[in-house]
Amino acid sequence: MKKLDKTYILETKPLFLAGAGVVSHIEGQGPLGNEFDKVEDPSMGEDSWESAESAFHKEATTLALKKAGRTESDISLAFSGDLLNQSMSTCFSLKSFNMPICGLYGACSTMALSMAVGALFVECGLAENTLAAASSHFCSAEKQFRQPLEYGGQRPPTAQRTVTGAGAAVISSSGSGPHITAARFGRIIDYGVTDENNMGAAMAPSAADSIWNFLKETNTKPEDYSMILTGDLGYTGSDLLLQLLIREHNCDISKVHNDCGILIFNKEEQDVHCGGSGCGCSAAVVCTYIHRLLREGRLKKVLFVGTGALVSTVSPLQNDPVPGISHAVLLEA
Amino acid sequence: MKKLDKTYILETKPLFLAGAGVVSHIEGQGPLGNEFDKVEDPSMGEDSWESAESAFHKEATTLALKKAGRTESDISLAFSGDLLNQSMSTCFSLKSFNMPICGLYGACSTMALSMAVGALFVECGLAENTLAAASSHFCSAEKQFRQPLEYGGQRPPTAQRTVTGAGAAVISSSGSGPHITAARFGRIIDYGVTDENNMGAAMAPSAADSIWNFLKETNTKPEDYSMILTGDLGYTGSDLLLQLLIREHNCDISKVHNDCGILIFNKEEQDVHCGGSGCGCSAAVVCTYIHRLLREGRLKKVLFVGTGALVSTVSPLQNDPVPGISHAVLLEA
Repeated sequence: MKKLDKTYILETKPLFLAGAGVVSHIEGQGPLGNEFDKVEDPSMGEDSWESAESAFHKEATTLALKKAGRTESDISLAFSGDLLNQSMSTCFSLKSFNMPICGLYGACSTMALSMAVGALFVECGLAENTLAAASSHFCSAEKQFRQPLEYGGQRPPTAQRTVTGAGAAVISSSGSGPHITAARFGRIIDYGVTDENNMGAAMAPSAADSIWNFLKETNTKPEDYSMILTGDLGYTGSDLLLQLLIREHNCDISKVHNDCGILIFNKEEQDVHCGGSGCGCSAAVVCTYIHRLLREGRLKKVLFVGTGALVSTVSPLQNDPVPGISHAVLLEA
Repeated sequence: MKKLDKTYILETKPLFLAGAGVVSHIEGQGPLGNEFDKVEDPSMGEDSWESAESAFHKEATTLALKKAGRTESDISLAFSGDLLNQSMSTCFSLKSFNMPICGLYGACSTMALSMAVGALFVECGLAENTLAAASSHFCSAEKQFRQPLEYGGQRPPTAQRTVTGAGAAVISSSGSGPHITAARFGRIIDYGVTDENNMGAAMAPSAADSIWNFLKETNTKPEDYSMILTGDLGYTGSDLLLQLLIREHNCDISKVHNDCGILIFNKEEQDVHCGGSGCGCSAAVVCTYIHRLLREGRLKKVLFVGTGALVSTVSPLQNDPVPGISHAVLLEA
């Protein structure tokens, strides 16, 4: 391991051995529908949306282990989190597995955070295999952060649709597959955004901070990457990110930038407003579509920057702003 | 680093360089009142209990950095979490510091979890200095998990009092002080406890699991430790822990066991029912009193086992059980 200021270069190149993504119908009808391992009913046959989210998490975890050819006893430590109060989805999913758990909280940046810590544990020989996972659910998120669906609330154009689904990755010291070659943890950036229906704006400044500093510290340029992939900025946030990087650093990433929240839905045909969001959005996209493109060598070098809006169920009611945090991992074919 | 099954032995012995604990009046009036760095009004002059908790967190972090002779730019990564929805206390405290953040969730085990990951990062050369912190607040916790204080709810004898306060530790590769010499991450253990006023019972099985496996994997006995210190089992949970270890493993830790939730209040003189609880309980006790006794050589070897009850604001309403998780770190003079 080599450290460049705040960026870790992983010299043993831990493997992103396998990934699995399980989503609900609307994501299954989107442009990446065929990429996901399973498309399930949003209820998952459970009695509550929270239990349903947990069932998506459990299914993705089970499939990722299977695809990696690993059992729960092979996992030295599982890193996971979600958006629900007290990470309820993660806790009730992972209690079914006999493995040590390190619960994480990074809002929608959780998948990148879990992959970053999981890869560092493998890099340093602390683990042979780690699990990294995250989940979200449209219905549990609307109920918790906005209004129960039954209220029929209107959503403004800047609102994003929380993805119903989960993604899980097995990171390993042995096997074959794409590699995780760098990781960088973000700081909290607060531009004072208070509109809880515009999470893209809340997260864009931290994404700009993480991307700019990653490029600067590694002495690379946007064109050195096949893709700079943000987690869930959606259309508004992505637009703001590109503007911020140009205005503040004269750095144009528009040719290589994409966003999991944009990739997962078809804006013209699906009623999703500003794109997808939620921990499950980047988790499901990175663990399926992106993993496949890397595995097949169709993407060489993807800087995956998970973006998190640090909004709680309480803070908007107290007129607190929504700070952002973005964590980055570099994925290479 | 050497790994014994699931226990990490830290061969470079990262330093528990400095700790700080800031609490409110009732903790200040308890047996450890003189140990804490500051005793503050529970409101901290803020407009909400959530902001007050965040202010305790910020104060403890500031003091720990100062006592360690470190600035925020010396911290490679800060590990922290709390009990509030979406870790609101941690997020709104740490946004004031310019340092990379890894948010954690381990319920009341968070201080041990953050010390475990923080020490491993130092052990592996990933960081020269890490911050580990956690907080809780009686009023924000009652409001969130039970009833707002204004309702005047009755608390049964097995209920514990959430500690109002925060603790922060700086873990470092250089300097002098006690060492962190081992770490072990727990798995989730669910005995089906559903009484949300008896968190001690919910956590005791996971504490027993972590302690027993730590002793077994390190081939040590209870009498090899000056203290086996659980986070916040309180009176009922501690009693259950001792019983479980004897019944299941014929292992008697009663001579060396203590609990931060028992230490922090005077049961006879303070109306705290079953003892203290909350992330801030073990955080404040370990970062002040325990750190001092280790520094002075009055304790040689403390196995600190943070205990977490994985209860969410929603799960009890859906009749879900309360699983437990316990993470362990070994502190040596």
